[in-house]
Amino acid sequence: MPSSFQSLILKLQDFWASHGCLIAQPYYTQVGAGTMNPATFLRVLGPEPWNVAYVEPSVRPDDGRYGENPNRFQLHYQFQVILKPDPGNPQELYLDSLKALGIDPRQHDIRFVEDNWEQPAISAWGLGWEVWLDGQEITQFTYFQQVGGVTLDPVSVELTYGLERILIALNNAKAIWDEPWGASVRYGEVRRQEEFEHSKYYFEIADVGRVRQMYDLYKAEAEACLANGLILPAHDYVLKCSHVFNTLDTRGAIGVTERQAFFGQMRELARRVALAYLEQRKELEYPLLKVAGSQVASLQVQPIPQLSNLQPANFIFEIGVEELPVGDLDSVVVQLRERAPALFDELRLVHGNIRIHGTPRRLAVFIENIATSQADLERAIKGPPADKAFDKDGRPTQAAQGFAKKNGVDPSALEVREENGGRYVFAVVKQKGRPTPEVLAEALPKLVESIKFEKPMRWNDSGVAFSRPIRWYVALLGDQVIPFEYAGVTSGSVTRGLRPYDSPEIKILSADKYFEVIREAGIVLDVEERKASIVEQVKQAAALVKGEAVIDGNLLNEVANLVEMPTAVMGGFNPEFLQLPRNVLVSVMKKHQRYFPLTPAPSPNSGRGGSSGARRGEGLLPHFVAIRNGDDLHIDLVRQGNEHVLNARFADADFFVREDLKHKLEDFRPRLGTLIFQKKLGSMLDKCNRIVKLAEAIAPMLGLTDTERANVKRATYLSKADLVTKMVVEMTSLQGAIGREYALRSGENQAVADAIGEQYYPVPKTRVGLVVALADRLDSLVGLFAVGLVPTGTKDPFGLRRAAIGVVQPLIEHGVDFDLTDAVQKSARTQPIEANDDVQTQILDFLTGRLSVVLKDMGYKYDVVDAVLAAQANNPAGAARAVKQLQAWVEREDWHEILPGFARCVRITRDQERTFGVLEKAFVEKEEKELFAVLQRAEATPPQGGSVDDFLNTFVPMIPSINAFFDKVLVMAEEKTLKENRLGLLQRISALSNGVADLSKLEGF
Amino acid sequence: MPSSFQSLILKLQDFWASHGCLIAQPYYTQVGAGTMNPATFLRVLGPEPWNVAYVEPSVRPDDGRYGENPNRFQLHYQFQVILKPDPGNPQELYLDSLKALGIDPRQHDIRFVEDNWEQPAISAWGLGWEVWLDGQEITQFTYFQQVGGVTLDPVSVELTYGLERILIALNNAKAIWDEPWGASVRYGEVRRQEEFEHSKYYFEIADVGRVRQMYDLYKAEAEACLANGLILPAHDYVLKCSHVFNTLDTRGAIGVTERQAFFGQMRELARRVALAYLEQRKELEYPLLKVAGSQVASLQVQPIPQLSNLQPANFIFEIGVEELPVGDLDSVVVQLRERAPALFDELRLVHGNIRIHGTPRRLAVFIENIATSQADLERAIKGPPADKAFDKDGRPTQAAQGFAKKNGVDPSALEVREENGGRYVFAVVKQKGRPTPEVLAEALPKLVESIKFEKPMRWNDSGVAFSRPIRWYVALLGDQVIPFEYAGVTSGSVTRGLRPYDSPEIKILSADKYFEVIREAGIVLDVEERKASIVEQVKQAAALVKGEAVIDGNLLNEVANLVEMPTAVMGGFNPEFLQLPRNVLVSVMKKHQRYFPLTPAPSPNSGRGGSSGARRGEGLLPHFVAIRNGDDLHIDLVRQGNEHVLNARFADADFFVREDLKHKLEDFRPRLGTLIFQKKLGSMLDKCNRIVKLAEAIAPMLGLTDTERANVKRATYLSKADLVTKMVVEMTSLQGAIGREYALRSGENQAVADAIGEQYYPVPKTRVGLVVALADRLDSLVGLFAVGLVPTGTKDPFGLRRAAIGVVQPLIEHGVDFDLTDAVQKSARTQPIEANDDVQTQILDFLTGRLSVVLKDMGYKYDVVDAVLAAQANNPAGAARAVKQLQAWVEREDWHEILPGFARCVRITRDQERTFGVLEKAFVEKEEKELFAVLQRAEATPPQGGSVDDFLNTFVPMIPSINAFFDKVLVMAEEKTLKENRLGLLQRISALSNGVADLSKLEGF
Repeated sequence: MPSSFQSLILKLQDFWASHGCLIAQPYYTQVGAGTMNPATFLRVLGPEPWNVAYVEPSVRPDDGRYGENPNRFQLHYQFQVILKPDPGNPQELYLDSLKALGIDPRQHDIRFVEDNWEQPAISAWGLGWEVWLDGQEITQFTYFQQVGGVTLDPVSVELTYGLERILIALNNAKAIWDEPWGASVRYGEVRRQEEFEHSKYYFEIADVGRVRQMYDLYKAEAEACLANGLILPAHDYVLKCSHVFNTLDTRGAIGVTERQAFFGQMRELARRVALAYLEQRKELEYPLLKVAGSQVASLQVQPIPQLSNLQPANFIFEIGVEELPVGDLDSVVVQLRERAPALFDELRLVHGNIRIHGTPRRLAVFIENIATSQADLERAIKGPPADKAFDKDGRPTQAAQGFAKKNGVDPSALEVREENGGRYVFAVVKQKGRPTPEVLAEALPKLVESIKFEKPMRWNDSGVAFSRPIRWYVALLGDQVIPFEYAGVTSGSVTRGLRPYDSPEIKILSADKYFEVIREAGIVLDVEERKASIVEQVKQAAALVKGEAVIDGNLLNEVANLVEMPTAVMGGFNPEFLQLPRNVLVSVMKKHQRYFPLTPAPSPNSGRGGSSGARRGEGLLPHFVAIRNGDDLHIDLVRQGNEHVLNARFADADFFVREDLKHKLEDFRPRLGTLIFQKKLGSMLDKCNRIVKLAEAIAPMLGLTDTERANVKRATYLSKADLVTKMVVEMTSLQGAIGREYALRSGENQAVADAIGEQYYPVPKTRVGLVVALADRLDSLVGLFAVGLVPTGTKDPFGLRRAAIGVVQPLIEHGVDFDLTDAVQKSARTQPIEANDDVQTQILDFLTGRLSVVLKDMGYKYDVVDAVLAAQANNPAGAARAVKQLQAWVEREDWHEILPGFARCVRITRDQERTFGVLEKAFVEKEEKELFAVLQRAEATPPQGGSVDDFLNTFVPMIPSINAFFDKVLVMAEEKTLKENRLGLLQRISALSNGVADLSKLEGF
Repeated sequence: MPSSFQSLILKLQDFWASHGCLIAQPYYTQVGAGTMNPATFLRVLGPEPWNVAYVEPSVRPDDGRYGENPNRFQLHYQFQVILKPDPGNPQELYLDSLKALGIDPRQHDIRFVEDNWEQPAISAWGLGWEVWLDGQEITQFTYFQQVGGVTLDPVSVELTYGLERILIALNNAKAIWDEPWGASVRYGEVRRQEEFEHSKYYFEIADVGRVRQMYDLYKAEAEACLANGLILPAHDYVLKCSHVFNTLDTRGAIGVTERQAFFGQMRELARRVALAYLEQRKELEYPLLKVAGSQVASLQVQPIPQLSNLQPANFIFEIGVEELPVGDLDSVVVQLRERAPALFDELRLVHGNIRIHGTPRRLAVFIENIATSQADLERAIKGPPADKAFDKDGRPTQAAQGFAKKNGVDPSALEVREENGGRYVFAVVKQKGRPTPEVLAEALPKLVESIKFEKPMRWNDSGVAFSRPIRWYVALLGDQVIPFEYAGVTSGSVTRGLRPYDSPEIKILSADKYFEVIREAGIVLDVEERKASIVEQVKQAAALVKGEAVIDGNLLNEVANLVEMPTAVMGGFNPEFLQLPRNVLVSVMKKHQRYFPLTPAPSPNSGRGGSSGARRGEGLLPHFVAIRNGDDLHIDLVRQGNEHVLNARFADADFFVREDLKHKLEDFRPRLGTLIFQKKLGSMLDKCNRIVKLAEAIAPMLGLTDTERANVKRATYLSKADLVTKMVVEMTSLQGAIGREYALRSGENQAVADAIGEQYYPVPKTRVGLVVALADRLDSLVGLFAVGLVPTGTKDPFGLRRAAIGVVQPLIEHGVDFDLTDAVQKSARTQPIEANDDVQTQILDFLTGRLSVVLKDMGYKYDVVDAVLAAQANNPAGAARAVKQLQAWVEREDWHEILPGFARCVRITRDQERTFGVLEKAFVEKEEKELFAVLQRAEATPPQGGSVDDFLNTFVPMIPSINAFFDKVLVMAEEKTLKENRLGLLQRISALSNGVADLSKLEGF
């Protein structure tokens, strides 16, 4: 009998009630998630314990699908659990709760996939996972780090079950609608009409003006409440603000930059609510803290063992963790491979090979044959001169005795050694190596502590930050446990097995057995082995459908680091979805689902060509390969689950694409008028129109052909139209790609379509695409700088740094000369508000800064980059050429001879405030006449396009003359005319680098 | 171990899920009750079945008590159950659910107390009960009759559990705050701070202007949704309207009449939502109807028994019902006592004594010794005259034969009888009496059907309307069941026992045993016996605390009709509450709790005097007597529960009174400015100021002393101040009483205080109170008529009919002459808008109409009333005196001589358009001269103050002269002068009744 929706809720309530949770009720105002309920939002703040569980009908207007999507709705039911503080085993509790629902981990593929949760409207974030059941996200599992801008201590564990998805998975259903809710009534009978009506309301009917007014009223009430210390009423209004904001957003009434303003307001309110709550609880003296009492369990660390066997022994150190994000796993393995050998050397522990491995749940450091104790240490400490150390009788003097005493040696043990031609007494201090267990017990926690992550988290009262919680350590030297405690966990000899096998505890008898035990547990410890296994399995699976897997390196690495025991599952999807744009299909499979897409295997007769034009999913097979964590038991269930998910996602995309394709791409343009780019800069339509103009103005600078210019015009005209398509509104990452696709399907030519797609590429491929991208990015820079929205510190909400890089990088890669000053000025002329000279200078400085970063990232020395940019920052492509050349010069062996030659000329003249004329007849000495002649030759061939080579190739022959000049001629002659004529000569030489580089910025100048 | 809040919810969810209910979730917007959730509001509409249960956090801003009251909160949790259609045993299911919570009916006093539920904002009403647990209302149990203005078919049963109150009762707690919620957290820890903050928000902080704007925006969105067929989104906005309306109301920002406008708007929206939903479900072809299938259980009615014994037998007919309201029970007993004897006579069933009894759960009709069949019937039908019926030979003619055939008798059986001096043939038709069982089987359903109630309800698909559902019949003639079916129930021989004993089924073996069985079951069938028992028990209880019960007849009747087995429980309350005004204490005890208050028994030495001045509860003992339904098992629990309830209610009142008494009564006046009386008529403060003026203006008309006039001035000035006190806002019925009390405590004199209290009496006792009341009522009438808010049909939202009665009745009872025309004119001068002559006439007509009703209700004949009011409606007291006199005249034996005398004079003249002069010398005949002389004498003593006696005493002596005049004198003489002089004479006689009565309105005129 299929499970019913209500039985899920009743079972989860019972489960969590019996695990010490308070059962609360949904909140009485529309919220996007259970997190917004004060039972979470407020109660996770401050030191008091709080364990709670409740259902939350969660309203997300833009997820409305008119009741047509099998599992996407404007309202879904969450089951929310908060465990505060971390009980130490929240994952296990969670998996038990799934069992209570009838989900047996052996019959499914349950995975913890990295998820960095963030809710900007309430200034909250946390780290954790999406929990996947057969490819379907069924739960968000988060360790809250911050809420309302307040750092949480203790951290709360948040579990958010998606009840509809769980029911679909449990009943192996295609959609939620026909599944039982309870009492012989189906889910759809309760909710489908509601889905249709609310979707229509949010997308079509809600009156933008009125809803905006509601927002303003709510905000004002929230502020009034805060001013009167009313926290919960204020919170209610913040929630109402959030809901009407979402409504406006769904109506398409919120502009890109306006969004920031809204978020800023809501975040500020949420922050004030949170702070006021904290203050209130403090004043109330934390009543729930008293209830809980002090339940501090002290950790027992065992004594350090005495080794009976003095033979070197193998050592295993395993750090058991909750599932690490892929990036963190990569990073931690690199760090351990660097630090572990260094550490053991530093510790003077003689050892054999070191092997470092990582899986999502464990990091293993295995060291062969560690000595049982440190190598002894001998240091000779220099004392007084020998002649002052001993009296005539050879007896130690006072000085020697004092020295010996200080260093803890007997005076008779002082040695006389020779050093730098003198003779001194030395105290030879011997430090006995400590036993290895003692050393390791101290060192291992420090090793763990030394591991750093980009985005670490805290979870318990140890306050330790790590990628994800550490739950166990195995630390065995031979068969002895190296005892220590770190991050609230003590070391031992017990590891845990595979998740699908219920993570059984497995005792490791000795380090020697480690790899064997782990392999027997089904765990593939080595990532390369996992990758190879995946590649092999995926290929086999593909062959079954005469396909070939598209194995992307990044995806392979990701998938290999999501599992401990990879098993391929091939599934299919409805071939009708092959009508969808290929990038939609691939993007969903790879990015969302981590599946390997399959293409038809090339038949022996046909080449690889001809498929590049295949825009739709035609180049794909209606199959995919997923990688399960675990063996192949009940793999059919896993396959069906994954198929359901993928089909639902494709159905969603299909809905959008079908809706969108009722119109030509051009038809979407007018709706850009409703999308505000920035209040003062107008709508996205205004922006698009500016792009058209600017592109037309800068096209000549790039020497485009007439055809290219026509294409630029059309492409800019259409460039932003896809932003208001349903597909892009849904998957923003497809912007451009969808524009390209829809352009083609609307009959635009290939070049126009490609340019639309390329506008978002870091470096557009075609010159048409380049112009579109430049115009777009320059427009953003100039407009937003003019408004005053300049990036500061770490804040760059409009991505202007990225925009600036997007201007300079393509110019470099395309090697196209381009006058930034001119371009900025042209853009300024199209802006609706003034961008005066100061602003333009500010923009150009900003571009120079980014250009400098780009060039340094390309591997050029900072001083070389600085030197060139001081002279020719205005043309990135030229600057890049110059930097490349200058770097080559700087690396020449004779550079130390070239640079000083030029530097002498510059240094002696650079403080002169005047530029002096040069009169040939005023020269007196031979050497200066000679130098002037050489200079005139050089000046006859000035450097082309800022070429460093041109300049230096001309300059280098001048060096002997320069050196001779300085040797023989006194520049600073007493006679003024003479002096000024010589300075003038040198100023002319210095000026040879003008427009090329400022060599004074170089090291060694 | 005490029960936890969450365990109640989990148990109720489990209970109702296992009884076929869908478990739904609370709604995502603030609602005042679970009824507003669309899972109730919409799903009860239309024919589809629907069984659902859910928690609903219910927000009622004006119930906020800052967390200070033990069981009154701005938010409480309801558990809502809808059973559609009626399952036939909802009360039993409900009681089972209480058992599932651990509430054993044997240990408590569970009662079903009439409750007519109404929710005007959604145009919904239903009938049912409050369920009381030891005096505490823990559930509302309603048979919905109408929702959204739509009559429901089928009817839904709604159960609304008050979870907090149940928890308090279960844990025998004093307040909710310290009771466990779950997971070691107490209820107060979860919710108390929230109560404080929200209370403060709703009462003090909410910005009236902004909240009003919200209302307007919501209303507009609701309308936009409806215009687009979006029912659920529209409903959401209706709910939001309702919540912000409640917020405004709590802020004191809604005026008395403005309220009507808001309700009107919300009701209209709710109605449109309901109708649109009905239409939608129809278009969808009622999907849930298909799911349910047809589950019509056909009722089996047994065959009518053949009686073996032909001796007369006793007959019992018991109608088993769900608890009848007290008023309906009184009414049905009266109806049965009237109809049953008539019915049995009509049925020609010879019988002995009839006894009729009623309890809340059963109506019993017992008839001694009914004959086993109807009496035979013999009718003689008159045929043709005897001489035409037989020929000369005495044989029946054609005519006789035809007549005989038609009446089914043999021609030879025709009889000849004498009638009115003629001789006719008669056919004597004999109808054999039918067996009693057959007759009763037909008659009993008709008897039930004939019972009428003021406010009946439907409950099942029989469509029958009754006071409350009928659940069984016992119909036994001797030991034979009289079989029939009515209202979906078939008759039998099984009754049910007492509720506290679980309503066991009890078979009645024969009618003879009925009273014995019922008594053995513990049921006191006779209401007089119940009353006597209550009086006896209450007296005994009172004696225990040296007290005396205040036994009010209405209360005694009510209590006696709420139970089947009365048992007195005496409880106490905190003596500190005796500080509260006595009327608050008594009102709470009697009206809310149906308790008998106790006063100290008079000590033998002291008289009864001296206590009339005791304003506070000093004249009361801190005890009360409640009447339990059931025996005295576990009576201590019942007592404790009742004590808790009463103390909580008193705490609530105490909170208000303490808050209020921080100010003098006068200090409340300014806040009347925030209470809108009516948009065009201004605030209650404006109204109060008008009352002051008007009272000053009309005081002279009533001949008040200077002191009285000073008191009137002060009393009117303070008259409305109590409306904005917390106590009156809470218990509106205490308006005036509280004003009086607070006036005294503010140092006002007794007369002023009494007048403030008396302004709401139907008839104020003092003349000062009378003036205040008249001014208030006249102001309402004149103002609201001027605005155009005239009562129409059954609609009188502002109670203007009551106001008009409140003007005329006191004038009559005080016997004070008063010129209504003048008073209305004076009031019109104080109004902010014009009340022109037409309006004033309209008001006076309206007053006359009410005066007429009042007089007729006093027992006067309609024609007498009409006659007097035609002449002197302007002065109610005078009119009443005149009516009384005229009625006495009309009832005189010689009235048939008096009236015609006057009538002759009037009739002959009334069509004359002119009034003719009378010239003495123009009279010709003796009789007319005589009459004129008599008239002149009469005219010399005109009636005083519209006295009928004066007029008629003067008139009666004229009658012989009048008769002589008409006998001898031709009024309509040919000569014009003669005729007109005579007509003039008669016109003068007719005019004698001017200002007294229009006798032409009398019967017989």
